[in-house]
Amino acid sequence: MSLAAPRILGIDPGLRVTGFGVIEKHGNQLLYVASGCIKSNDKQSLPERIKTLFAGISEVIATYRPDQAAVEKVFVNVNPQSTLLLGQARGAALSALVHADLPVAEYTALQVKQAVVGHGKAAKEQVQDMVVRLLKLPGAPTADAADALACAIAHAHGGQGLGALATAGYRVKGGRLIG
Amino acid sequence: MSLAAPRILGIDPGLRVTGFGVIEKHGNQLLYVASGCIKSNDKQSLPERIKTLFAGISEVIATYRPDQAAVEKVFVNVNPQSTLLLGQARGAALSALVHADLPVAEYTALQVKQAVVGHGKAAKEQVQDMVVRLLKLPGAPTADAADALACAIAHAHGGQGLGALATAGYRVKGGRLIG
Repeated sequence: MSLAAPRILGIDPGLRVTGFGVIEKHGNQLLYVASGCIKSNDKQSLPERIKTLFAGISEVIATYRPDQAAVEKVFVNVNPQSTLLLGQARGAALSALVHADLPVAEYTALQVKQAVVGHGKAAKEQVQDMVVRLLKLPGAPTADAADALACAIAHAHGGQGLGALATAGYRVKGGRLIG
Repeated sequence: MSLAAPRILGIDPGLRVTGFGVIEKHGNQLLYVASGCIKSNDKQSLPERIKTLFAGISEVIATYRPDQAAVEKVFVNVNPQSTLLLGQARGAALSALVHADLPVAEYTALQVKQAVVGHGKAAKEQVQDMVVRLLKLPGAPTADAADALACAIAHAHGGQGLGALATAGYRVKGGRLIG
């Protein structure tokens, strides 16, 4: 909870499930603080679901008092309506973070995989295994929590605001970072 | 500012420009209160732009203290990345409204046109003209403010929470209401 040991909140946004993970960076050491997910009820209206997500993330911030936030960039879905819903969920997550005056960094799934596993083609399971190893967890967190923790780790491993993540040599094509 | 004369905040969400319009419903009479738009700087990062939108709408709510909110439904763009950005802007707008505990109703552009002009095929200019006439405005508001006022008018004219908007006979197809 200081600049010497910044506490980082990672967010993997989604309308149905938004994962969160909180870690602390002590020098080269990463300490697990907390993780979990915020679920919205698909029988509720969109404004009600947005309220659940916003309030849930605000509660996580109030409880764990992070210094910085890292949010996974989401990609367009084959279904444009799903893309629109996912965008609104991510907008609610970003709103809760900036409303709490947290500096927010954004990482693509590719950047997260590279930072956590070492290459961008890693499978989801490899990312989850590395999260467990890097944070010395006693068991595997849920997929959404693991993705959020991975995003926080990517930020801790020299991401924006804490150093330079190597993005040289990458091009953006159709919204995706290409190796 | 009471149940007898509810104050309605209409929102036309967008990342670059979000329009807002505030009206009061006194019986069958609609009174103009305020309108305008919140612009975000496209040279800033997405989290910074989301912060501008969220803070701007929060300020409008704090200033005009509406009782209810009506938000225009947005539609998928031909460009999926634009859809994703628009979704995030709308998510920020909804977050500001629900964070202020406002009940939020949503209307499609078709529903707004039907409520304001009388049919869903109305041109944008017809909607703007009707907004000027219905609210007895001395001049035409900007396009974004007019759309937001139109959405508030649609809500006042028997929308959700204030009565029944006639949606019978409409089918939803691909996310659009079809006449």
